[in-house]
Amino acid sequence: MNTPDTVIDTYLASWNEPDPEARSRLIEAAWTGDGRHVDPLADVTGHAALGELVAGLQAQFPDHRIRRVGSIDAHHDQLRFAWVLVAPDDTVVVAATATDVGELAPDGQAAAHQRLLQADATSRSARGRARPRRLQRISAFFGPMPDAVAA
Amino acid sequence: MNTPDTVIDTYLASWNEPDPEARSRLIEAAWTGDGRHVDPLADVTGHAALGELVAGLQAQFPDHRIRRVGSIDAHHDQLRFAWVLVAPDDTVVVAATATDVGELAPDGQAAAHQRLLQADATSRSARGRARPRRLQRISAFFGPMPDAVAA
Repeated sequence: MNTPDTVIDTYLASWNEPDPEARSRLIEAAWTGDGRHVDPLADVTGHAALGELVAGLQAQFPDHRIRRVGSIDAHHDQLRFAWVLVAPDDTVVVAATATDVGELAPDGQAAAHQRLLQADATSRSARGRARPRRLQRISAFFGPMPDAVAA
Repeated sequence: MNTPDTVIDTYLASWNEPDPEARSRLIEAAWTGDGRHVDPLADVTGHAALGELVAGLQAQFPDHRIRRVGSIDAHHDQLRFAWVLVAPDDTVVVAATATDVGELAPDGQAAAHQRLLQADATSRSARGRARPRRLQRISAFFGPMPDAVAA
């Protein structure tokens, strides 16, 4: 069973994997076949297009890495996390963190997954039979909320 | 044509409308029929369930209002904005702002809408024929990003 952490770890590893074949395997593990990534600069759907998106960023920023900042905030099938693009010397390329909001696909086992999460430990052995959940969508925003000062 | 601002204005007005019939009209204007609102405490789909969700909050916090903070950050069919729950005396109930990330439904005219946005002013007269876009999903998170300090 994928947890939000393992899905996002796999997702971020795909952004940082220079080998195309290894990257494709990570993308297939992290994303549903019709998974969609939409950010201010791109809107792509499916494993092949996701791979091209990653390759494009790597070509533009060689040897840079996407690094998650802070923990993953998750509820239901929704999750959010912050990230930065860092240069090989570990400096942050974009000063402000970006935010990704993702949605996990049910992969046919969402209801069972929810029940298991709420069940007691005696049910835990059944978890291994559930298919791993993958990303259905990542909606990314660059930088902080626009002029959203505390009220 | 609904813009993100008018959609979200209508959406927020529905949260603040005490009259059930007027509230239903606002919800129908803001949401697709299978629109989904998911936040840490609720996961509902459809106009009736959305109306019950709003009525529940109003019963729990009488005469309070949801108020948007800052502007709407939008790209493609995605948007985000911050909001607070304020008491009748204008104090903020929850100290930290919440964040909503929404997705607009195409309503069958998304491609035309995108083309029109990119077209020159001579095409503007065609915009009025496009059907208004409505919300397909709101994914809400309460409070700031978890321990996401600047890297």
